[in-house]
Amino acid sequence: MLRPWKFSLRETIDPRRGVPIYLQIVHALIHDIRRGRLTPGAALPSTRELAEALGVNRKTVVLAYDDLIAQGWLSAHGTRGTFVSRQLPETLPATAPADRADDPLNPTEADFPFRATPDPTLVFPGENELTIDDGLPDPRLFPAETLARAYRSAAQRAERSGGLSYGDPRGSGDLRRSIAEMLGAHRGLVVGSDNLCITRGSQMGIFLAGRILLSPSDAVLVEGLGYSAARDAFAATGAEVIGARLDAEGLDVEDVERLCRHKRVRAVYVTPHHQFPTTVSLTPERRLRLLDLAARFRFAIIEDDYDHEFHFEGQPLLPMASYAHNRTIYVGSMSKLLLPGLRIGYVAAPEAVVRSMANLAASIDRQGNALTELAVAELITSGELRRHVRKARQVYLRRRDAFGKLLRREFADAIDFEVPHGGLAYWATFRDASRLDAIEKGAAERRIRLLPSLSFAASPHHGRGLRLGFASLDDAEAEQAITRIGGIGAPARCAATESDARRG
Amino acid sequence: MLRPWKFSLRETIDPRRGVPIYLQIVHALIHDIRRGRLTPGAALPSTRELAEALGVNRKTVVLAYDDLIAQGWLSAHGTRGTFVSRQLPETLPATAPADRADDPLNPTEADFPFRATPDPTLVFPGENELTIDDGLPDPRLFPAETLARAYRSAAQRAERSGGLSYGDPRGSGDLRRSIAEMLGAHRGLVVGSDNLCITRGSQMGIFLAGRILLSPSDAVLVEGLGYSAARDAFAATGAEVIGARLDAEGLDVEDVERLCRHKRVRAVYVTPHHQFPTTVSLTPERRLRLLDLAARFRFAIIEDDYDHEFHFEGQPLLPMASYAHNRTIYVGSMSKLLLPGLRIGYVAAPEAVVRSMANLAASIDRQGNALTELAVAELITSGELRRHVRKARQVYLRRRDAFGKLLRREFADAIDFEVPHGGLAYWATFRDASRLDAIEKGAAERRIRLLPSLSFAASPHHGRGLRLGFASLDDAEAEQAITRIGGIGAPARCAATESDARRG
Repeated sequence: MLRPWKFSLRETIDPRRGVPIYLQIVHALIHDIRRGRLTPGAALPSTRELAEALGVNRKTVVLAYDDLIAQGWLSAHGTRGTFVSRQLPETLPATAPADRADDPLNPTEADFPFRATPDPTLVFPGENELTIDDGLPDPRLFPAETLARAYRSAAQRAERSGGLSYGDPRGSGDLRRSIAEMLGAHRGLVVGSDNLCITRGSQMGIFLAGRILLSPSDAVLVEGLGYSAARDAFAATGAEVIGARLDAEGLDVEDVERLCRHKRVRAVYVTPHHQFPTTVSLTPERRLRLLDLAARFRFAIIEDDYDHEFHFEGQPLLPMASYAHNRTIYVGSMSKLLLPGLRIGYVAAPEAVVRSMANLAASIDRQGNALTELAVAELITSGELRRHVRKARQVYLRRRDAFGKLLRREFADAIDFEVPHGGLAYWATFRDASRLDAIEKGAAERRIRLLPSLSFAASPHHGRGLRLGFASLDDAEAEQAITRIGGIGAPARCAATESDARRG
Repeated sequence: MLRPWKFSLRETIDPRRGVPIYLQIVHALIHDIRRGRLTPGAALPSTRELAEALGVNRKTVVLAYDDLIAQGWLSAHGTRGTFVSRQLPETLPATAPADRADDPLNPTEADFPFRATPDPTLVFPGENELTIDDGLPDPRLFPAETLARAYRSAAQRAERSGGLSYGDPRGSGDLRRSIAEMLGAHRGLVVGSDNLCITRGSQMGIFLAGRILLSPSDAVLVEGLGYSAARDAFAATGAEVIGARLDAEGLDVEDVERLCRHKRVRAVYVTPHHQFPTTVSLTPERRLRLLDLAARFRFAIIEDDYDHEFHFEGQPLLPMASYAHNRTIYVGSMSKLLLPGLRIGYVAAPEAVVRSMANLAASIDRQGNALTELAVAELITSGELRRHVRKARQVYLRRRDAFGKLLRREFADAIDFEVPHGGLAYWATFRDASRLDAIEKGAAERRIRLLPSLSFAASPHHGRGLRLGFASLDDAEAEQAITRIGGIGAPARCAATESDARRG
């Protein structure tokens, strides 16, 4: 049986693959042993013979044989030659189910049970497609040079201090101190660095908060329309995730009270500053009532202040955490201020809560990226971040207004939306659901990516709409994106005039 | 009641604190309202009057009042003046439990129930202390300049491609491709980039593997002596974590088989290359038997290959994953190769498994640090990483041998250890437990940090010892560290001669 086997081997070997030839021989032989083509005790050709058959250097075959002997697949018997080991578990060949699945070179199938997790609702840029995200900043506005400089000096400081090994799971002391200063000076949130835990984006802050607050027998309230990834993180704890009513003044606290009477509510997740996705701001009265309910029903308020700085009209309200530290876990992020791709977020909470979250984080990813934490601390203390934010706010304000005009031009009165006072996205609802359906069906073929309108609702009756991020698209991109989706399912006449408009 | 109240206010205001004065006034007033010192309807002093009383600019007080009116705490009635709002929930003052806890300026206590998580067993450098870690590289060996350059070009590439916004939760395509090449060329592990998910260090790979493999009714087997953070991650799933026997040939597969007969074993976590903490290598025969058991009992093998490259004697065995992709989740990390502080790890597994792990990761932290992923890809493809590893291996080899001599000199035959063929740490067991106890008690006051000897055992009967990382300490530090702990609890005579030796 050596002859056919040697041919099959020759077919498997491909010098053009990135894999060293000797390893290809090793894998091919292991493969043939495991599928029973080569049986325990079978004699292998001499290294010279095989080298000739494969047209490779003899040294290569020697290397492969030595490796297989070391791994226990082959055994050498002095001058008698090399054989398939007799020590192999008899059942081994039998363990090969489908050839393909068992072929180490085609590792596509798993021969063990695992929990398949559904694809999350994410939208991120694809090849020659336009993405209308849910309100991300434009990373192109942040100068690579500034970033590179911050990392350079971080690397130098770290080299001196050996700071690139492991450290405090709460995150770099430098970064926690500078974030504490930032929160005190610009958000009225007075905390010390022991009240802060650095996280990998606000998502991780939400995930950790859920894990220390919730058990399967508990309930967590979220805004009826909200951030699906937050609901996913809470659902992972086994707790019941319930959407509370939402209106033009934000979360409906009456409904919160009603739910608290019927469920074991341990946490209320809220985006009071710029509600996600509807952009409304939770009124002062409701904030105080919510605090009142938190005191009466002893639940924690998870306050997600994901884009505090980008507020365009009027003075932003202080975060609830600034006057109720003891009832809130404040979740913040540098993703909007700086760059999402750096994954720097933080939670501000009572010391003991922070410690518990940090301990949990240690079992998830040990700690954050020490170099990035130093670099971001640098950007905050040097004032680079403030300068960037001031500049970016102007750009976003312009883009917001232009975007609103585009929406009116393309959709006329087919959609309802308010110009957001803050945040980086519009919330648009459709008078005629069939138009929305058409857009969601047609977007892909017009090479536009959008978050599904249903992905925001905690349950379908909370309604649907489109969250349209305006900040990450420059004028030309916004024009393109909106005209592309605007054209879809539009009444014939106005569609025509539109295309004329564009041609002219 | 205004007079005493104004005095209390004056005491709270402290210009030296980093917090803007107007915010301090805001907080102090909110504080006094919430604790009932100022009751709904109470009249506040005029801005001029209060400004004088506090010795601050009147504008500051105006700013504070405006803020409080916007927040709903105060209401202005034209010329009649400013009053505490009557709209406040009556119960609000009652919600203040202890003054301190409710004081927003002392956010130390939480007024909601949460799960306090125990401190994990971590060891990281402290102020003027020497840390004997569990086998970390020396971050000082990696030139800051090289790192800074990699980040710079990553930042530039990202700026062009907008690559610092969100992307594929499996991680940067560039990095996955270059890791796939690295694994194929240097570890005989042939995978495509669809078989890879980038994680935040190997810890996250272990955490994710546990979450997709285990349910509370399942069992996971670990090595009797092992990595406590891995056990923590598995325990977080609710599954039973069982330590299997371990000997000089690594994990005892007979014991694994026995446990599989009695428990619903869904995963076996193993460090076959350099067992953590004992440094032994799992023999080829046992690897094949373990694969055989995996096939028969349909469990997944979580193969943690945390420091593959640093192998000093003989040829490293191929990872089990290289010939059994379909039965393994291979967990790797750049922490030892490069820098722990960058938090770049990865899992190699069948495509569907990788996708599920990535989806899970998305709900934990959305994705990794895009800039770092680009920079590390750069370091791999440019060859900088290989150069660094070649250099570092020489240094570590020298340090390993010197460290062994130190151990002999200081402990003579009080401890048993083998010089490790690979990995960055020694494993030392003590003939006399009281000596070990003395060392662990005395280390702190000699300003030495060590992982507790009991932290390695899945359950106490698996024994104890010290895992002594030699790579991150230069010669002088190693000399200091070992002599400091060597002196503790040593028999009087030899302790004397030692100190002489050091004086001389």
